[in-house]
Amino acid sequence: MNRHVLSILVDNNAGVLSRIAGLFTRRGYNISSLSVGETQDEKVSRITIVVFCDDLVIEQIIKQVDKLIDVIRVIELDNERGIFRELALIKVFAPPEKRADIINIVDIFRANIVDVGTETLTIEITGEQTKIEAFKELIEDFGIKEIVRTGMTGLCRGNNPIKNTRNEK
Amino acid sequence: MNRHVLSILVDNNAGVLSRIAGLFTRRGYNISSLSVGETQDEKVSRITIVVFCDDLVIEQIIKQVDKLIDVIRVIELDNERGIFRELALIKVFAPPEKRADIINIVDIFRANIVDVGTETLTIEITGEQTKIEAFKELIEDFGIKEIVRTGMTGLCRGNNPIKNTRNEK
Repeated sequence: MNRHVLSILVDNNAGVLSRIAGLFTRRGYNISSLSVGETQDEKVSRITIVVFCDDLVIEQIIKQVDKLIDVIRVIELDNERGIFRELALIKVFAPPEKRADIINIVDIFRANIVDVGTETLTIEITGEQTKIEAFKELIEDFGIKEIVRTGMTGLCRGNNPIKNTRNEK
Repeated sequence: MNRHVLSILVDNNAGVLSRIAGLFTRRGYNISSLSVGETQDEKVSRITIVVFCDDLVIEQIIKQVDKLIDVIRVIELDNERGIFRELALIKVFAPPEKRADIINIVDIFRANIVDVGTETLTIEITGEQTKIEAFKELIEDFGIKEIVRTGMTGLCRGNNPIKNTRNEK
């Protein structure tokens, strides 16, 4: 079971997301993270999916995703050739005597404090998943009240874009 | 048609994502953005969905989402009480004579350059959707080769976390 990251360009139609998610469900594979947003063309969205499964299985899934009508193109982002990023918002328990310690950790990770409550700080952190995991482990001791993560997103390094050429179907 | 942001805590089971996305599809509402990632409890994921629809419709959708077995809790994030963030990676066409201009804009928006190709720069930007839109408009003149966005994620301001109490079903 390896980590696989799929980047899928789709026509922005209702239903495409549930059909793609359904492909994984029917095989019993749980999507570890998924994010979808608009691209430079408002009729086209890009979905990034992270899933843990065997290499053989991911090939079959890619073929099936590619067959869906609304899918323009699907590629697997190579762990070595990809730029991967995720954003997390973390609300941490922060009594006055602990705040300085938390702010120190936030600075080291180049994270940002985006909200201050009477008992909490809300932190925004961006980076590769390993960075967010490391930050989470450090901050966990203070007590995490809430966390929300966008799921991973990514692009290929270098000049090559994922081409927007539609496959024959 | 207003923007509505739903924050949904779910058991991390295969299929929950396609069932939730399916609820929107059946009503013909297109999900504008969706992101899902793990929380502090690895068995629980949090899904953030942005959808444009009437206020009455969103109430019905919330009730239906809440009835799904794997859904622990669903709330709508208030535009005034929420902290909203999104992350985008943008690969822009950047010939040597244009690089300085692009880097200036990147600095003003506190964005980061995360990769340099012979003909392109890849930029990471984080912020509210309006900030990302404004940045995109400025950078568009140089030629966007690729863009990927995580979709919006958010938390309530202040101390109150979304409670993890399970509704009776």
